[in-house]
Amino acid sequence: MPTKGASADAADPGTVRPGGRTARVRASVLRAAGDALVEHGFHSLDLADVARRAEVGKTTVYRRWGTTTGLIADLLADMAEQSVPRTDSGSLTEDLRSNARLVAATLTDPRQGPLFKAVIAAATCDERTARALHRFCETRIKEWAPCVEGAIARGELPAGTDAREVIRAVSAPLYYRVLAGGDPLDEAAADRAAAAAESAARAGAHIG
Amino acid sequence: MPTKGASADAADPGTVRPGGRTARVRASVLRAAGDALVEHGFHSLDLADVARRAEVGKTTVYRRWGTTTGLIADLLADMAEQSVPRTDSGSLTEDLRSNARLVAATLTDPRQGPLFKAVIAAATCDERTARALHRFCETRIKEWAPCVEGAIARGELPAGTDAREVIRAVSAPLYYRVLAGGDPLDEAAADRAAAAAESAARAGAHIG
Repeated sequence: MPTKGASADAADPGTVRPGGRTARVRASVLRAAGDALVEHGFHSLDLADVARRAEVGKTTVYRRWGTTTGLIADLLADMAEQSVPRTDSGSLTEDLRSNARLVAATLTDPRQGPLFKAVIAAATCDERTARALHRFCETRIKEWAPCVEGAIARGELPAGTDAREVIRAVSAPLYYRVLAGGDPLDEAAADRAAAAAESAARAGAHIG
Repeated sequence: MPTKGASADAADPGTVRPGGRTARVRASVLRAAGDALVEHGFHSLDLADVARRAEVGKTTVYRRWGTTTGLIADLLADMAEQSVPRTDSGSLTEDLRSNARLVAATLTDPRQGPLFKAVIAAATCDERTARALHRFCETRIKEWAPCVEGAIARGELPAGTDAREVIRAVSAPLYYRVLAGGDPLDEAAADRAAAAAESAARAGAHIG
């Protein structure tokens, strides 16, 4: 994860400890950046405004994050770190459903939902943000892939199934609803996405 | 479709005929709007600039489209009208694959790809654009749903399968790649999306 490097001040790594000042400053700044994104979107994001909101010196924000896209990249890295760990129920059906419900709850959360939309919009026009978003997705997918690997090991899914592709298949219909189709994203939609991904995986559609 | 109403000038409906001046003006303005979106994104879209690019009077553009979001809504309606009609091969597998390849080709097209991204970004922060995008998706989905309905009638898919949901399931992983995950969107990815949607549908995951 590049976050640690980005938030740690290279000039004085000794000051970086969990709960230390550096960590507190980062938490305040990322919280303020999230608030600003939710309220005004990516195009109005401004480092000086974020510094004011976070009650942190402007120089600190400029020195540590440099640009708004640098700040969004760090926010995404933090979101990936904060991301809820996978469940491990021993049942593929239940694990995929938990994953789908978690994604749906995040995308429809009053704060996280608009934040994700703002970040995705930013990624459509900024390459660095796009790379940070891809890394966020990969982190989440890696976290949940062992549920699928477990099912392969138990013989519930065909050998050679691409575990990450199954996890992506759970998320995709949920993102599609929020970003393009506009159909409601509720628990029923989440459960359907999980069931569809599982059926396809069982039929061997995600081998290789 | 609300387009016709939007592009037809209510003051003089007699001038609206295919190939007439009104249609030519609309085509030029939508072309120019698309160019501007691809070059600079949604946030820099400006009606006066679009009028200049289209070589159409500024007053005409302001009177007919009113706002940039009104213009994007009409552009999406036009994209839905221009959208390639479904294939009807009599084979569900082939029809879904054609649909997936068409969506993938559109999303990765040097002009259409950035245009879609700009419109999706705009929809994340503008309600009217979001509704126009949902209508675009619905139009495409309605166009392709009969492939699935045919398969249900032939007994290839369980009775009660939601045809539109199957078509959405084909598109979703392709949009997800482009907007979030960042994995390459090639023909193999398209074929896999089609096969996964078909497997899930055959297993009854899209009933109801």
